[in-house]
Amino acid sequence: MLGLIAGSGPLPFEVASAARDRGLQVAVAAIEDNADPALERAVAGPFAWLNAGELGKLVEFLRGAGAREVILAGAVSKRALLADPSRLRPDARALALLGRLAARGDDAILRAVADELEREGLRVVESTRYLAQRMTRRGVLCGPPLEPAARADLALGLRVVASLGEHDVGQACVVRQGTVLAVEALEGTDRMIRRAAEFGAGAVLVKAAKREQDMRFDVPVIGPATVEVAAEARLRAIGLEVGRTLVLEPERSSAAAERAGITIVGLGAEDA
Amino acid sequence: MLGLIAGSGPLPFEVASAARDRGLQVAVAAIEDNADPALERAVAGPFAWLNAGELGKLVEFLRGAGAREVILAGAVSKRALLADPSRLRPDARALALLGRLAARGDDAILRAVADELEREGLRVVESTRYLAQRMTRRGVLCGPPLEPAARADLALGLRVVASLGEHDVGQACVVRQGTVLAVEALEGTDRMIRRAAEFGAGAVLVKAAKREQDMRFDVPVIGPATVEVAAEARLRAIGLEVGRTLVLEPERSSAAAERAGITIVGLGAEDA
Repeated sequence: MLGLIAGSGPLPFEVASAARDRGLQVAVAAIEDNADPALERAVAGPFAWLNAGELGKLVEFLRGAGAREVILAGAVSKRALLADPSRLRPDARALALLGRLAARGDDAILRAVADELEREGLRVVESTRYLAQRMTRRGVLCGPPLEPAARADLALGLRVVASLGEHDVGQACVVRQGTVLAVEALEGTDRMIRRAAEFGAGAVLVKAAKREQDMRFDVPVIGPATVEVAAEARLRAIGLEVGRTLVLEPERSSAAAERAGITIVGLGAEDA
Repeated sequence: MLGLIAGSGPLPFEVASAARDRGLQVAVAAIEDNADPALERAVAGPFAWLNAGELGKLVEFLRGAGAREVILAGAVSKRALLADPSRLRPDARALALLGRLAARGDDAILRAVADELEREGLRVVESTRYLAQRMTRRGVLCGPPLEPAARADLALGLRVVASLGEHDVGQACVVRQGTVLAVEALEGTDRMIRRAAEFGAGAVLVKAAKREQDMRFDVPVIGPATVEVAAEARLRAIGLEVGRTLVLEPERSSAAAERAGITIVGLGAEDA
């Protein structure tokens, strides 16, 4: 039995389906206000809706379902929690955990949750464990070939996100003609793209993992929704770090990119 | 005769007034859509309104006024120019210059303009030349003493802007409890603060110069307007890099900070 702690977006669906394809049963703990309600109908095994603060109940549910390995997939919006802390209803176990957290970077919180689960004998594994063949490869994945100016912008973007990755900051930026238009922190990639769009068309988005990203958590992804936002923003390209990012619903994402004339490209260290 | 190329905000007023205090006459080239219209009444010497693209006319005006040294003070909104390039009316000289510019980082453009002026025998000097005693000093400048948590957030912010400074990106970020809430790129400090405010009160703003900031251009400043935005955002502190940033209208800025319970503090490398 695989335990799946499900945040927002399509990643939990893809993890559940990939695990099922391997013959695994999946017990899903869906995080309220974050996980897609459709998830409940999409999976067959044990299912529970939990508040992001119900750590004790989470451990109980996963152990009760007989899970040995656990995957965290999809984002849990820290933004919503920070803006309205009353939406977090921490149980005793979560309160004890929060008390021990000195820093509160995303990774720090997730790592602490993972440690708690591991202490209970639940092994937290990489969210990409069953999606290995899906990780971004180097080179143009879809869309028109890249011009040198776009390649130079992608290289600059890659260097910028690499600098930020040291500090547990967001993992994306938008660049055009050598100027960094916007850098993502806590607001999310879509909002960051929309902000950059105010400065006009033809920019590129770069998305990468943090330098020390713990691949058990919140792997950087794009999907059809991000591509649609990129199309509205009239971006010319989306660069994704090879091996550590993922395109969700690849057929739909590629089709949307082709329609908008957006190149999606996998970028390695040699492209920076 | 000192030539003053005036962008937005109070810095041109302060430079003009400090230069006058030293017995210098000042010829002001005010950049349309950017410089404060009140500047025309505030200065006594030669005065001209110029479009940001009128480089030839700028050289003519400054030379005609007998300027030998030139100061660039205040920001020229690249954002407005990028959003609506029709607002830039480049003359032949400006077009030739733009054609030669490969990258378009803020500094790259300003450096090219400075080079053009220098080629005409106009020496571009630091905008802070007459404001040396006003550069930020280390320690609390006004407001309540800092708690250790705020000091830790300021240190993180300082490290984040240091990383970004390598790439000619904006020079400010907002941090709270170890989480980077927002990073400035092209949108400007005030907008970045407002975005961070959505995540709640108690954060700190850090503002610093780029690592290789050419102090002839666009020195990072805060003034009463920034402090008011910080107050609305319920920030607890504003950290400014020592020696390379400036508080404009210091009495008004301090008064606004004291009223809002915001600490303004000068941060050195030892605070990172």
